[in-house]
Amino acid sequence: MSKRIAAFGEVMMRLQVPGHELLSQGSLLKYSFSGSGVGVLSALARYGHRGSLVTRLPANPVGDAALAGLRRLGIDSEDIQRGGNSLGIYFLENGFGARPGRVTYSGRAGSSFNTAPPGAYPFAELADKADAVHFCGITLAMNEGVSRAMKTYAEAVKRRGGLVIFDCNYRPSLWGEGSYELARPHYEEMLQLADIVLMNEKDAIHILGMNTVKEQREEQLLELIPAVAARYSLCTVAGTHRVLHGDNRHSLRGYIYKADSFAFSDTLTFSVLDRVGAGDAYASGIIHGELEGFDPQHSVSFAAAAGMLAHTVEGDSPMASEQDVFAVLAGTVRDVQR
Amino acid sequence: MSKRIAAFGEVMMRLQVPGHELLSQGSLLKYSFSGSGVGVLSALARYGHRGSLVTRLPANPVGDAALAGLRRLGIDSEDIQRGGNSLGIYFLENGFGARPGRVTYSGRAGSSFNTAPPGAYPFAELADKADAVHFCGITLAMNEGVSRAMKTYAEAVKRRGGLVIFDCNYRPSLWGEGSYELARPHYEEMLQLADIVLMNEKDAIHILGMNTVKEQREEQLLELIPAVAARYSLCTVAGTHRVLHGDNRHSLRGYIYKADSFAFSDTLTFSVLDRVGAGDAYASGIIHGELEGFDPQHSVSFAAAAGMLAHTVEGDSPMASEQDVFAVLAGTVRDVQR
Amino acid sequence: MSKRIAAFGEVMMRLQVPGHELLSQGSLLKYSFSGSGVGVLSALARYGHRGSLVTRLPANPVGDAALAGLRRLGIDSEDIQRGGNSLGIYFLENGFGARPGRVTYSGRAGSSFNTAPPGAYPFAELADKADAVHFCGITLAMNEGVSRAMKTYAEAVKRRGGLVIFDCNYRPSLWGEGSYELARPHYEEMLQLADIVLMNEKDAIHILGMNTVKEQREEQLLELIPAVAARYSLCTVAGTHRVLHGDNRHSLRGYIYKADSFAFSDTLTFSVLDRVGAGDAYASGIIHGELEGFDPQHSVSFAAAAGMLAHTVEGDSPMASEQDVFAVLAGTVRDVQR
Amino acid sequence: MSKRIAAFGEVMMRLQVPGHELLSQGSLLKYSFSGSGVGVLSALARYGHRGSLVTRLPANPVGDAALAGLRRLGIDSEDIQRGGNSLGIYFLENGFGARPGRVTYSGRAGSSFNTAPPGAYPFAELADKADAVHFCGITLAMNEGVSRAMKTYAEAVKRRGGLVIFDCNYRPSLWGEGSYELARPHYEEMLQLADIVLMNEKDAIHILGMNTVKEQREEQLLELIPAVAARYSLCTVAGTHRVLHGDNRHSLRGYIYKADSFAFSDTLTFSVLDRVGAGDAYASGIIHGELEGFDPQHSVSFAAAAGMLAHTVEGDSPMASEQDVFAVLAGTVRDVQR
Amino acid sequence: MSKRIAAFGEVMMRLQVPGHELLSQGSLLKYSFSGSGVGVLSALARYGHRGSLVTRLPANPVGDAALAGLRRLGIDSEDIQRGGNSLGIYFLENGFGARPGRVTYSGRAGSSFNTAPPGAYPFAELADKADAVHFCGITLAMNEGVSRAMKTYAEAVKRRGGLVIFDCNYRPSLWGEGSYELARPHYEEMLQLADIVLMNEKDAIHILGMNTVKEQREEQLLELIPAVAARYSLCTVAGTHRVLHGDNRHSLRGYIYKADSFAFSDTLTFSVLDRVGAGDAYASGIIHGELEGFDPQHSVSFAAAAGMLAHTVEGDSPMASEQDVFAVLAGTVRDVQR
Amino acid sequence: MSKRIAAFGEVMMRLQVPGHELLSQGSLLKYSFSGSGVGVLSALARYGHRGSLVTRLPANPVGDAALAGLRRLGIDSEDIQRGGNSLGIYFLENGFGARPGRVTYSGRAGSSFNTAPPGAYPFAELADKADAVHFCGITLAMNEGVSRAMKTYAEAVKRRGGLVIFDCNYRPSLWGEGSYELARPHYEEMLQLADIVLMNEKDAIHILGMNTVKEQREEQLLELIPAVAARYSLCTVAGTHRVLHGDNRHSLRGYIYKADSFAFSDTLTFSVLDRVGAGDAYASGIIHGELEGFDPQHSVSFAAAAGMLAHTVEGDSPMASEQDVFAVLAGTVRDVQR
Repeated sequence: MSKRIAAFGEVMMRLQVPGHELLSQGSLLKYSFSGSGVGVLSALARYGHRGSLVTRLPANPVGDAALAGLRRLGIDSEDIQRGGNSLGIYFLENGFGARPGRVTYSGRAGSSFNTAPPGAYPFAELADKADAVHFCGITLAMNEGVSRAMKTYAEAVKRRGGLVIFDCNYRPSLWGEGSYELARPHYEEMLQLADIVLMNEKDAIHILGMNTVKEQREEQLLELIPAVAARYSLCTVAGTHRVLHGDNRHSLRGYIYKADSFAFSDTLTFSVLDRVGAGDAYASGIIHGELEGFDPQHSVSFAAAAGMLAHTVEGDSPMASEQDVFAVLAGTVRDVQR
Repeated sequence: MSKRIAAFGEVMMRLQVPGHELLSQGSLLKYSFSGSGVGVLSALARYGHRGSLVTRLPANPVGDAALAGLRRLGIDSEDIQRGGNSLGIYFLENGFGARPGRVTYSGRAGSSFNTAPPGAYPFAELADKADAVHFCGITLAMNEGVSRAMKTYAEAVKRRGGLVIFDCNYRPSLWGEGSYELARPHYEEMLQLADIVLMNEKDAIHILGMNTVKEQREEQLLELIPAVAARYSLCTVAGTHRVLHGDNRHSLRGYIYKADSFAFSDTLTFSVLDRVGAGDAYASGIIHGELEGFDPQHSVSFAAAAGMLAHTVEGDSPMASEQDVFAVLAGTVRDVQR
Repeated sequence: MSKRIAAFGEVMMRLQVPGHELLSQGSLLKYSFSGSGVGVLSALARYGHRGSLVTRLPANPVGDAALAGLRRLGIDSEDIQRGGNSLGIYFLENGFGARPGRVTYSGRAGSSFNTAPPGAYPFAELADKADAVHFCGITLAMNEGVSRAMKTYAEAVKRRGGLVIFDCNYRPSLWGEGSYELARPHYEEMLQLADIVLMNEKDAIHILGMNTVKEQREEQLLELIPAVAARYSLCTVAGTHRVLHGDNRHSLRGYIYKADSFAFSDTLTFSVLDRVGAGDAYASGIIHGELEGFDPQHSVSFAAAAGMLAHTVEGDSPMASEQDVFAVLAGTVRDVQR
Repeated sequence: MSKRIAAFGEVMMRLQVPGHELLSQGSLLKYSFSGSGVGVLSALARYGHRGSLVTRLPANPVGDAALAGLRRLGIDSEDIQRGGNSLGIYFLENGFGARPGRVTYSGRAGSSFNTAPPGAYPFAELADKADAVHFCGITLAMNEGVSRAMKTYAEAVKRRGGLVIFDCNYRPSLWGEGSYELARPHYEEMLQLADIVLMNEKDAIHILGMNTVKEQREEQLLELIPAVAARYSLCTVAGTHRVLHGDNRHSLRGYIYKADSFAFSDTLTFSVLDRVGAGDAYASGIIHGELEGFDPQHSVSFAAAAGMLAHTVEGDSPMASEQDVFAVLAGTVRDVQR
Repeated sequence: MSKRIAAFGEVMMRLQVPGHELLSQGSLLKYSFSGSGVGVLSALARYGHRGSLVTRLPANPVGDAALAGLRRLGIDSEDIQRGGNSLGIYFLENGFGARPGRVTYSGRAGSSFNTAPPGAYPFAELADKADAVHFCGITLAMNEGVSRAMKTYAEAVKRRGGLVIFDCNYRPSLWGEGSYELARPHYEEMLQLADIVLMNEKDAIHILGMNTVKEQREEQLLELIPAVAARYSLCTVAGTHRVLHGDNRHSLRGYIYKADSFAFSDTLTFSVLDRVGAGDAYASGIIHGELEGFDPQHSVSFAAAAGMLAHTVEGDSPMASEQDVFAVLAGTVRDVQR
Repeated sequence: MSKRIAAFGEVMMRLQVPGHELLSQGSLLKYSFSGSGVGVLSALARYGHRGSLVTRLPANPVGDAALAGLRRLGIDSEDIQRGGNSLGIYFLENGFGARPGRVTYSGRAGSSFNTAPPGAYPFAELADKADAVHFCGITLAMNEGVSRAMKTYAEAVKRRGGLVIFDCNYRPSLWGEGSYELARPHYEEMLQLADIVLMNEKDAIHILGMNTVKEQREEQLLELIPAVAARYSLCTVAGTHRVLHGDNRHSLRGYIYKADSFAFSDTLTFSVLDRVGAGDAYASGIIHGELEGFDPQHSVSFAAAAGMLAHTVEGDSPMASEQDVFAVLAGTVRDVQR
């Protein structure tokens, strides 16, 4: 059954050098508009839900282009504010084999989203309009203003009985020196409000400062995630373990923890076309499972397959339909579909 | 020695999204003109034969473009009729790894080829001009008119002593409900007329309704193909078994049955660039072998190598020269040719 | 004040050869999705209204792409039906100077829109949702089914007190032999239902069979349009006179007839980048003026300026904001805007 | 009625920087294959004749590409020899307004055509196959070998009663110092063999060393061309006067001299998209008129219109059909053709 | 004789939508690196001088690309500092006819150049290395730091006897409210240091607050420029008057004031391909004339022709050689150069 | 510590069909400028050295573009001569999997570099300007003139105490029949002058005619390279063994011989994006190690990693920084760098 989902987060302009050239070799950039919330809503729209983005875009041609790009993905635009001067930009140079891809950020601090004044969003009203709202840890790292706005919105959602979804999405480069200590209280505030959380054992250890004597990732996960869920009264916790192979292939295994028990997906190994944004596809799979009442094993399998597929499409935003994900779960290697 | 080959079949306009975007992401389409007969003649022209396409194109700029495209491939255009309004179109979205490619057909039923009036082609005259003529099972599925035209042409060729080549090329999606029963009499008519037939054991079982207690594909093939050859007095029967791997690689093994015995190619495993049309390259290899009097083992090896190479070029139409195929058969892995 | 506008009409896939090559020279096509209703809603969305398209798209990747393209233009997609197999396509080769551009249609008769079964649209419900609905004469030419559907929808709108907008948009090539007699009763039915009509004196003479002894277009217009308005009780009639110059420039003069009097725009002369769809921009300007209560002189000036600007953007769909049109009306030649 | 035409001449590879960048700014080149003979045959094929190119291409991938390109234009390839190592290349940077375009030649001296050994072509046999053969003055400037081959071919055509067409096409940069004296005997030899000649009064004065006291180009033409025709017993002489305007427009006026009288086309003034090769379109118009028996006034008007249209298409080779040229002659400014 | 020129200024990343699409329509951006100083040095390098840019680029892939782009233009890179995080960006949408182009700035305030710390440049050492240094008024508008740095550099150049060139380049949008008063003292400081100044009567009136009772621009110029030159002891003052026509053409007339007398170029009228940066080409022509000792009439004609040519190339940076400019001055309309 | 390096060699224009099309399928070519010396200097510039190319480019737009391309790579252009008419060109068609890539040369014999007259370069002066000069065996194969010039330059460098680096780079196709005997004396002359030599055991056997009873490549290497080093008093000898796998992957193992002992890199196996020019990256790694005083094991590991990375970038010229190579040596498989 179709649900109304909102997401609060920054829209980035992605400027990608096509093919395999470096910025110092090329002359063209492919542009698109993305972000963690954008990716989640793009996926959920393809699964039949209505998704509305809560963000702020400049009232200029770049903002117009972002708006058109979001609508093209099937995202509703009626809750988008216009103001400020610019979008955060990231340049992407694709890697190949032994050469890793590179992301270079530009102008993020001064973006329309990150400079929104207090009261820029009607959070109370927005909280009434959605069954669930997605928040992302990246926003916490930006500045006091957006961090505060995000918590205000989450509180309003919580108060009105909506689902608060929080993806920890910790990025060390955004927090700077002594970063974990800086980040911890912000993350704890959000975890207090959250119902569904995306994270894994590393977040528990580093951000939340939890301890374990276990050395294997899997064992750490089994020990720490139930503790996190208990401490913050979380309904559902989910995440992935990823392994990178040297030949352009990754392996992914998803987990979900709910009602005191774990479920795991198969370990999927696959070729990667476009790495960025695939984590949001996994998150969307979990969210869809929760909204639709999938049993946890089905949710985690669905999410892992959705995550895998997101590595095989261009751009940051998932494009697979529910049917596409089910076809992967059915498991046959398939020829061109006619 | 150069032979005169004709092919009767539809020219499709292929509209491919470049790279790996979906139709809902992109803005450009690469266009080219192809079809089963087109592919066979393109290959045979590269092996030194003269190939003439018997088809019908609209007398408008789209038809002009198709004509130019066919000529560019080295195909003679003097037997092409002009009339009707449009070409059948297919949209192609490339797959990547775990995500299969997609083909979407558009406007095929109303194409100039499929709406040709009776008498549109001078079949008697055409039958005199070719040493061999290639027909394709896809044409049988279109409508009564083209199906009838095809058989008329084949009968004329047979009557005048030309070789009738028939590629079963059964496409379930084109026949609809109860399809095998619908298709059977049409296929039987063509097999009665044919000298060289492309098919495998699945066609024997499903289209011709033959039975076997064997369970292995190879065993079924060994049992059924001789029976088919006997029933329809075929000179040569050939085909392939294909296996899809999950990582963008396919395996291909060709067989040929002639003069009461089988020959098989090695199983070739290779990376796939462009899947569509590769079957026609295999068929062309078999036809070339037959026209040149290769011994069956050489024919089937040549055809399998030609089929493999066709997966490594852009577009539906084979581009490899006889020399290119021989280089593959020689078997060394090769660096850039300077 | 923002109004809710709907438009009923076919979505075409435009396949344009980029630059100035012919189809027989090129290898790429730029694709986009357009149509008379699409253009009108694209313009009105930029003027601040909400526009929803009532049409039928195939439930396949081509239909998905069309949906994404419409949403990107700012058009609401919630009233779009999915079904059928394909879109009508038109190929566009740009002209240059003495060489005219060429449009080649393909597969329009079998499109999802033109093959919609009776009852495909919930017209009563739709009629309740819009303040005004736009209909186009091209739809009348398609077949009995869509023609009937269109009138049903217009009647429902009329009955519920919505505005019925009808653009005559007569295309001789679509009606065939004896076309005016064939078309007349259909046009008369629509005119009986319409409030705002886009047409000029040629439509009155040819489609409606009206007579005049005047020889000048302007005189004919002044005589016939009031007669048409009276005969069909039209609130507003508007249209343009266009003159083509040999050097890639056109001249355009708009008229509006309302409350028994005419108003005319200046004759605008301008260079043309993209000719197709500019008529819909003029119509949108008139509609916007009517919805906003502009005085007729302002409406016709706004519409003509909007029409001119639509010749200066790529694609069929108007992209100018209300502010952009006002800047043209202000009349200064402008340098790059920084 | 369709005639068999041959042309003897070099195929050049055109490497054009797309758009308006310079070679030192860009990164892509558009490639195509052209030449004076190629252009003439491309035009004549569109007027319904069969055209076969007599040239020499390298037996490597560049030669294969040239062959495919010629066939795509509708040119027959059966008389093309393969050998040597390379094609002559020219780089083209488009001009804009006050900035002229630039052509840079590369590797022409060593091309397969210009290094063909004696006996490379079966001229006697070729002379039997064509109703008329086109030769170009550029070939005379290359080297002794090709110059000799060209005359041998022209003699064979003359001997067998075919039409010899000669386009003077004098290029000062190819002849170097004291060039007119060097060129004169070669041109005289060809004029002795020719039936139809393309030239104007400048060629008479400079190449043939004829004198006149007239100062106006038109007067010089009227005096000298009859003298040339008489001296060399020419059936038809034709050519153009071109004027360049500063704003990307040219004016063209054609003349034809036949049976002791002149006919002139209107002076056509038009915008220029692609300047190179337009002279061959004019020549083709004259040749078509002669082959079809147009009266001289019709021929020269047709040729001038064909020449004008050739400035409006991409590439060196004319693409207009006879119908397209007639439409220009009919003289109405036309909107997009639907 | 080749001189050593430096320029101090910001490098911008230009992101241009190719062709005529808007940002909300397209998917690709063409990128290049430009700026006022970049344009001047690019032009002077083509006139045979050595030009070195003094600026600050980020030490990341975007900065690497900028460096490569500057070197490609023939600009020396040894005086470029690396540091900070980003480049200022501007998005460019091309206009067409009645639709003006649009520039949207992004992230300029936080650019590496505009956030350079005090002492980032070794100005004393740099002042020793150049015969002349170019400064631009845009830099004054950025912030106190760069404004201060610029004056420090200019003082060092002055002290060591180098030429100080100052282009007023006043941009209202950069100075905000009460802008002229804000700007005046900064401009006065620079004028005190300058030898060659680019400006016109509007700068005198608005920035310097000078008065005149004349109403014609030309009369104002004749009155005010000598007064400016006298007040600030300027050696040379030069500038242009520009008129925009509605049809994509501009008119340009240059002036130079030197040794108490004026010289004017012809009024040049021409089609515009790329407007941005053409002012720097005019300035470079003046500078070249001064460095080479052209007489003022020759300088101003050269500069105007160089300015005109800069409108006919892609990108912000002039690409014409001295020979190209001389060819324009010679005045013949020219065909493709072979 | 930054050193001054020069390289003497031809600049080729690379014309690559983008993607995987053949020349006979495509319409666009990507152009860039490369060569053995270009590649070496590009790499060394990225390692912090100053590199200046000694070559000859035509004084036309193609030469200007080459100059701009070299500067873009970070190569100094002040020692480049201008003259002659053209560049050598090579066409590149990318291979895919079982289909090898193809290189077709065009017009190399007549290039500006290969037709430089005696005295075209001031070798004595150039020898003073560089710490080390790189020479390439390909130059020996061109003609007597360039071969002589190269030795003259190498002698001047040797005489003044600079390092002479010689990469054997033997290309059988350039020497023709009886090639080894023809080549031997030239190679021996260069080896007499050289300090650092790039070669392996095959060069010793074939070019130098040395014998060995060993059958394994490794054993041959261990026996022959010390003998070569002794015979020609070489300081350092280095090279690689390459193995091609069928699936687009290569394996590479580097060796260095210095001070009587060998060091070997690991055998690296990796996917190949662009094969051409990777050998120059290995050579540059060795040269960098020698210039910086790396110990031999570090040099050979660095060179092999640099060689591997050069297979992963577009174009012939290495683009990796020293930091990029060190990151590979550190050995972790890395995700996108943010």
